[in-house]
Parts: sequence; structure tokens; C-alpha cells
Amino acid sequence: ARPDVKKISPSVIKVLGNNCLAPMVLNKGLPELIKAAKENGVAVLAITNSHHMAALWPETEAIAEAGLVGLACTSYKPSVAPAGATKPLFGTNPISFAWPRPGKMPVVYDMATASMAMGEVQVAKREGHKVPLGTGLTKEGKETTDPAEIADGGVLLPFGGHKGSAIAMMVELLAGALVGDNFSFETKEHDNNDGGPPKGGEFILAISPDKITGAGWNKHADKFFNKMSEMKGVRLPGERRHKNRQDLSPRKINEDLVKKIKELSQ
Amino acid sequence: ARPDVKKISPSVIKVLGNNCLAPMVLNKGLPELIKAAKENGVAVLAITNSHHMAALWPETEAIAEAGLVGLACTSYKPSVAPAGATKPLFGTNPISFAWPRPGKMPVVYDMATASMAMGEVQVAKREGHKVPLGTGLTKEGKETTDPAEIADGGVLLPFGGHKGSAIAMMVELLAGALVGDNFSFETKEHDNNDGGPPKGGEFILAISPDKITGAGWNKHADKFFNKMSEMKGVRLPGERRHKNRQDLSPRKINEDLVKKIKELSQ
Repeated sequence: ARPDVKKISPSVIKVLGNNCLAPMVLNKGLPELIKAAKENGVAVLAITNSHHMAALWPETEAIAEAGLVGLACTSYKPSVAPAGATKPLFGTNPISFAWPRPGKMPVVYDMATASMAMGEVQVAKREGHKVPLGTGLTKEGKETTDPAEIADGGVLLPFGGHKGSAIAMMVELLAGALVGDNFSFETKEHDNNDGGPPKGGEFILAISPDKITGAGWNKHADKFFNKMSEMKGVRLPGERRHKNRQDLSPRKINEDLVKKIKELSQ
Repeated sequence: ARPDVKKISPSVIKVLGNNCLAPMVLNKGLPELIKAAKENGVAVLAITNSHHMAALWPETEAIAEAGLVGLACTSYKPSVAPAGATKPLFGTNPISFAWPRPGKMPVVYDMATASMAMGEVQVAKREGHKVPLGTGLTKEGKETTDPAEIADGGVLLPFGGHKGSAIAMMVELLAGALVGDNFSFETKEHDNNDGGPPKGGEFILAISPDKITGAGWNKHADKFFNKMSEMKGVRLPGERRHKNRQDLSPRKINEDLVKKIKELSQ
């Protein structure tokens, strides 16, 4: 199968994923989104029925490299309890934002609205670290700093209490009902449990500062980034990843982990 | 002066506030935004030079009552330190989101990206309560639970550590460089310090589920809201405010506070 691109309006692109892998779907949809946002000032890309959205910064960064502001979000399977609850409903519901800086690397972030990814909780469990209070709940719904109690039948919490929970809810609505694909709880219901990644949708927004504000926006934004960068202890989001990507020297690797993976794959 | 409405494209409306009060500016801009989003599926309203944006839920709720998804944000004067820093750069940078529910009240939230509004910190100080760790820092940049240490020369923190900080940064960029108005730090630089509210801009986005996904989105979203509402301890955002607004019975009032205000105004 191949993805179908449908232009709903001059500023709304829909890509029916037709079970294709996410990179294929994005390759079809992103150029259309970027074109539409440049022409109209704002555009939405609504992706459905794709296997499966991973990190979102590649798409928002591509949008920013085209001179546009990018925002993307997707849901997954339930692993996070809404604030106040003790059972999962939200996915880890990442949200990614990128700001264009012509001639410089964009400022980009990509973060789970879960306080911590379950993968990180599992690493903490394996390595015997505690996790901060607010990371998750035990299977009885009690607060805990023990990653094992969260990983083994417990539940993650959204970052930042009820405020992060509100943002996780927004992600469910944008990547679910708005684009016309599954909520996290539906993804779980429809999953065939073969261990493979389930299907889902993604919401992507692109906005053109050139169109909305015209010349000068970049110089203006740089004033703000300079103020931020001058503050002790502050790093612009994405800066470290950009540096790491450009660094071609040898990588430091967790040898124990590599050994375990090799053992498991024998 | 009167606000000037400029249609930049079929999906971008700009309102030059010309120093007018926010309600005047919104009255001019919102109907145009709603019309553009219904026609095109998505639209942006970029507001500049207006005195001054207060709660944002009235505008996002109005958008949702017209059957559209609404998102709004604005900055103000620096009172919040970026994660890692000890000095203010961000405003309290509220963000408001509203989801339409035809035939029912929209789901609406309006929250500061500051962990707590400075007003609430001052209430805690007056009433002798502690505030949670993470609310703010002392003037020396140390963590504290004493609201007086935050209110008197200290600084607020964003909610949820570096993740909330990333969202507060997004608000600065959308309500500042994107719409073509001040960042919080510029609002402070330009303020005439007469005690009156400073000027600023606002970013408002409206998206049409009817246009993007068509029939069925509302029923689909209701499934999600029902799941959420069924969870013990969970309340849909905005629910309490809607109920309170419909309740016409006598209000409970802080008599000491009223007495103090009366004394101060004699």
C-alpha cells in the first residue's frame, strides 16, 4: 500500500497512511504541509493509520529548517494516569515544537507529557536508582519513588501534575478525534498484540512567521534567544542534540547493556 | 483609536490593537478568526499592541462554542525563571485550550505555565501557608517553600521543571516574535511604570474538526471524555467553572479581605 495525500483546503493536508510506515507517510505529507504553510501562513497535516510515530523532532525540525514554526503530537497506548486518577488512559503523548532560525540550527524540543518515559523507569529499575516523586504510582495507586513499583503493574503520571495532564489530554484530542484516528485507549483495544508497534495518527501544525509578521521576526527572536543563552544554567532546547550529532568522535557505550543484548539475541 | 483588522491570507487574520483594550480587539478579531477557520479548516489570529490580555478562556471558549478547537497564549512581564536559571525571563505565560462539544459545554482550560500565579503566592504569604517545592526560588536562587521568600525579591518557576519551561518558551515565541509583539522582557523595558497594565500581543489558533475529519468527530471525542469522566478522581477541565457560573445562589466571600480592601480604598 501507499499513503494517499488529500488536500482538504489550501491549508489542510490529510494523509491516509493505509498501514504504511511513518517515514513513508511523512515523506509524502511534509512537503505538502510546508508548501501550504508558506502560501497561507498556517497549515495542518492530519495523518491517520500509520505504523508508527517515533521521535517527533525529525518532522518539526524539517519544518523549522524550511523557515516555519513546527508543532507535532501523537498518542500511543495507555500508560499514564490523568491527574487525580490511578489507572492509565493517556499515552506518553509526546509533543514537539521547533522554531526556525535562518542560518542557524532551529530550537527544537520533543518531550513526553509523561513525567518520564517507561523505558527510563525500566533503566532506573535495572540500575537500582530511585525516581522522583510524581513519576508514577504503584499498582495500588500510591505515590512511590521505586521504579520497580511503577514498571511492574503501576502507572506513570503526567509531568507537572494537573497542568501536564491538561496538555496530555490536548494531545489525545488533537492526535485522536481531530485528525480522525485512535485515542490511546482505542489503540490498545485494536492492537493485535503481536508485539509490533500499533497503528495511529499524528497532528502536525506549521506556521510561517514570514507571512504573519514579515521581515524582522528572526532578528527579534534572536534577541530573546540571546537573553536566554546568557542566563547561567540555561540551555536552548535541542542545542545538546545538535552538538552531539555534529560530533563524529567515538561514542561512550554501556558495555554491560550491549553484552546483555548480544546474549539475548543468540 | 480603533483596532485595524488585516486579512493577511484566507487563514491568517492580524489585528493591530492600536493601544485599544483587549475586549475591543477581540470583538473585532474573533468573528474573523472563526469565519476563516470554518472556511479553511485552520486559522491564526495575531493580535498586537493591545491593553492587556487577561484570562484567555473567554476567547478559546467562544471559539469552541462556534464548533472549533481553540488555543490561545500570551506573555506579560518577566516573573518566571527558565528551568536551570535563577532570574526571571518568562511571563506567567498562560495557555488556554478549548475543545468543542456541540450541544454540551466545551472542555476548556486556561493555565499559567508558571507553577503558581504570583497572586496565589501572595495569598499564601498573607494566610501563612507554605507553597510546594518547585513553586519558586529565593532572591539568592535557592529552593524554598516559604511564599514570602518568593514574593519578596525571589522568582517563580515554570510548572513541571524543564518541560513546563519549554512550554513557557513556546508561549514567548508565539505571542512575541511570531505575532510581532513584545517578549516579556521587552514589555518590561517599554513599560512606563504608571502601574497600569502594559501593552502586548496574543496568539490565537482555531481549527475545525468538521473540516479536517468530518462527521463523527464529536461522537468519537465523547467516547474519550466518557472514559475520562468515569475515572475516580478525574474532572474534565472547565467543568467546575461552568457549574459555578450556572449557580446563582449566594457566594461565600472572604470577609477579612473585603474589609481590608474597603479600608485601603477609604
